[in-house]
Amino acid sequence: MPMRNATAAVIGAGDYIGAEIVKKFAAEGFTVFAGRRNGEKLEPLVKEVEAAGGTIFGRSLDARKEEETTAFLNDADKHAPLEVCIFNVGANVNFPILETTDRVFRKVWEMACWAGFVAGREAARLMVPREAGNIFFTGATASLRGGSGFAAFAAAKFGLRAVAQAMARELGPKNIHVAHLIIDAGVDTAWVRERRAQIWGKEALNNPDLLMPPVSVANAYWQLYQQPKSAWTFEMEIRPFGEKW
Amino acid sequence: MPMRNATAAVIGAGDYIGAEIVKKFAAEGFTVFAGRRNGEKLEPLVKEVEAAGGTIFGRSLDARKEEETTAFLNDADKHAPLEVCIFNVGANVNFPILETTDRVFRKVWEMACWAGFVAGREAARLMVPREAGNIFFTGATASLRGGSGFAAFAAAKFGLRAVAQAMARELGPKNIHVAHLIIDAGVDTAWVRERRAQIWGKEALNNPDLLMPPVSVANAYWQLYQQPKSAWTFEMEIRPFGEKW
Amino acid sequence: MPMRNATAAVIGAGDYIGAEIVKKFAAEGFTVFAGRRNGEKLEPLVKEVEAAGGTIFGRSLDARKEEETTAFLNDADKHAPLEVCIFNVGANVNFPILETTDRVFRKVWEMACWAGFVAGREAARLMVPREAGNIFFTGATASLRGGSGFAAFAAAKFGLRAVAQAMARELGPKNIHVAHLIIDAGVDTAWVRERRAQIWGKEALNNPDLLMPPVSVANAYWQLYQQPKSAWTFEMEIRPFGEKW
Amino acid sequence: MPMRNATAAVIGAGDYIGAEIVKKFAAEGFTVFAGRRNGEKLEPLVKEVEAAGGTIFGRSLDARKEEETTAFLNDADKHAPLEVCIFNVGANVNFPILETTDRVFRKVWEMACWAGFVAGREAARLMVPREAGNIFFTGATASLRGGSGFAAFAAAKFGLRAVAQAMARELGPKNIHVAHLIIDAGVDTAWVRERRAQIWGKEALNNPDLLMPPVSVANAYWQLYQQPKSAWTFEMEIRPFGEKW
Repeated sequence: MPMRNATAAVIGAGDYIGAEIVKKFAAEGFTVFAGRRNGEKLEPLVKEVEAAGGTIFGRSLDARKEEETTAFLNDADKHAPLEVCIFNVGANVNFPILETTDRVFRKVWEMACWAGFVAGREAARLMVPREAGNIFFTGATASLRGGSGFAAFAAAKFGLRAVAQAMARELGPKNIHVAHLIIDAGVDTAWVRERRAQIWGKEALNNPDLLMPPVSVANAYWQLYQQPKSAWTFEMEIRPFGEKW
Repeated sequence: MPMRNATAAVIGAGDYIGAEIVKKFAAEGFTVFAGRRNGEKLEPLVKEVEAAGGTIFGRSLDARKEEETTAFLNDADKHAPLEVCIFNVGANVNFPILETTDRVFRKVWEMACWAGFVAGREAARLMVPREAGNIFFTGATASLRGGSGFAAFAAAKFGLRAVAQAMARELGPKNIHVAHLIIDAGVDTAWVRERRAQIWGKEALNNPDLLMPPVSVANAYWQLYQQPKSAWTFEMEIRPFGEKW
Repeated sequence: MPMRNATAAVIGAGDYIGAEIVKKFAAEGFTVFAGRRNGEKLEPLVKEVEAAGGTIFGRSLDARKEEETTAFLNDADKHAPLEVCIFNVGANVNFPILETTDRVFRKVWEMACWAGFVAGREAARLMVPREAGNIFFTGATASLRGGSGFAAFAAAKFGLRAVAQAMARELGPKNIHVAHLIIDAGVDTAWVRERRAQIWGKEALNNPDLLMPPVSVANAYWQLYQQPKSAWTFEMEIRPFGEKW
Repeated sequence: MPMRNATAAVIGAGDYIGAEIVKKFAAEGFTVFAGRRNGEKLEPLVKEVEAAGGTIFGRSLDARKEEETTAFLNDADKHAPLEVCIFNVGANVNFPILETTDRVFRKVWEMACWAGFVAGREAARLMVPREAGNIFFTGATASLRGGSGFAAFAAAKFGLRAVAQAMARELGPKNIHVAHLIIDAGVDTAWVRERRAQIWGKEALNNPDLLMPPVSVANAYWQLYQQPKSAWTFEMEIRPFGEKW
């Protein structure tokens, strides 16, 4: 594996999508900084990456706290220039409007929108002087549609998309690729499997066409990374071939 | 003026759009509850409405504080059933991403998105048991487009739109009309005039085609109110005939 | 009924939506020119409008033939200045892609897109010199969404929306209000009732929340007509309160 | 170059984008069928591809004539299974609405929408029995926006997008990847260079940030081709980093 003098920071390095992004960029030679709450849960991922010859630093990170994000990205950048920052914190909830509490609405926004704004801005602060870099955000169906019961989640995801758009328009001409990847499907995680089994019964899980493997999200990010600056995509949607939309 | 046994609450009853909405619904016979920060500024509006034979209650209201909004709407509903709630708080700002501070991003969201969520939910709490009512939200160009420099404002306006969509989908079948009015233009206010004069020179203000009179916004809300439930509009965009879009 | 020195032309004056538009504008004092294929079918509508004191001219019109549309609108304009032109020709079909024949694809486009372009352009030709007028187009769910089986219908409706947008942007500054009304629901017609009964059973028709009465479409057009030029809507969507979207 | 037992058909193999797509898929080992009007103009491209070791068949093709498209694709499929069909016919024009003639409106639609429908359907006819294949369509800014003067072009491009959407929703579950690539920029062609020089002066052409190299479009198609079926993109937009949007 040829190593690069470049760092990729993954904020929201959870067990599924985040972990696959980490492995992909590590396998491509990036030093990866992986951050999540309860950083001790990163241990198996760190071991797996290192066993494969990659370089990785796992950190506890509460992305809602701006000083933690700033420190995380600054540390990453000190190791090697921060070339990629991927914001992948999720916070999917569903409540009827009258049961959507102040606490839930605010917390979901802090996790999925506010933390993304901070991550994007702090990454930009490091990249703008060099006029180079990539800032990617994970979106969802709820980035484009405020479905019944999704006031909190959609408000946060719409907001994150707005941040990404504004940054893309401002930073594109400065050679920083800002992109928003919309996952228009359920991703194959324990939580989604459980929820689908509750709604449709366990046999629903036998249909492989409707659950997106986390590694496919990582590969989509890799496509975005590879695009030349003469033809950048801002928004890319992905869904499994059997998905209704 | 025939009086109705119904209340209209206007949250964000500022000097321009808000004041015209207040006057329109008062002139149509609603008791109007008008809320804004620094409620003492409502005095001339209260006098004008009362001189015209209307019924109005002006209140100081910080819409970011949920208990204030709850009390405001409960008071309105005690006077006469709350039939209309219009959320009209604005917070337009423009900063490069690196100069968008944590404080600005959070404050704009609290004013333009969070406060709207609270207002909508609390109005719904009063309307759902009666299965009747109207909840309207003021949107802007930035509800649909995250322009360069608008990360904070667009994130809040995108988020408010998501709240409105989720509420419309859930509450429509309960006979509550939720709508989102997009003002895709500058409104004729002192602030907009000053800003345009700075950018394009004072002569730009002589073009009447490009500034929307606040009363036109009030009339658009009145159109939404008049729609029969068999043909509700969720999203309505308005712009002056000379606007580029 | 106060009569106006103004004509409204309705192209596609069918038994349901078109007929209601005709009656509404006639009731508001317009001379109405109503055109449809098989103009003899207009006889009951003509009698009804005249019995109510309105002025109406019913004509056979194949809107796919540009010279017929030109003559129709010129005749209308000779009677009194053409102030309103509403294009309301429908052509809803659904076929799997492999069964969508050349003939169907072309015919649906000629009816729903091409004929609309011709109607809009020819109305504009009469209105531009006066710098006044209204040109409205009937859209549908398929104006925004190319659903499975709707390649032909959606291609036509997407195309019509493009025509409307381009005209609105060019003609707005010339004081001509171009609008696109999206009916995001089934309209209560014999054809829709029959189709729904086939799909969901006859009891589905007992739910009044899901079928839009044609008169509601006419009223929505009347709202668009009444808007002041300082606050025009280009696109307005309407749906019944119980509709899923 | 490892050769594949697979054919890629490029309909609209013009001098710029089309030629680059042809070269890319030939270089990846596909047998390429390249069709355009005046097929003799394909000679240099054919020579270039063959000199590089590729396999190519250049054909005269008027894509508005369904029997020509059917024959072209059948021939391609006889050589080796048709795995990729890319519809890349352009027809950009700009006229004020009153100067948009019947002939122009119809011709642009036949080239950019009708021909695309036929190509997509005929490719699907070959691919559906095998439950495998890729059908890609080239879109433009005018696929999403009906700008002033673009009634004809946008009507066609909106329509093509509708066709692509309907096909994607129907054929995705049959393992056929249908995608719509939106080029939101001027592409670096002789025609665009000339037009820009007229509008902004020749020095505008010195800015490399605003013209998309045709090869970048080919590479974007290659990215779409490489996506696994668990994470397909339907719509992908590309623009140069300096583009305003």
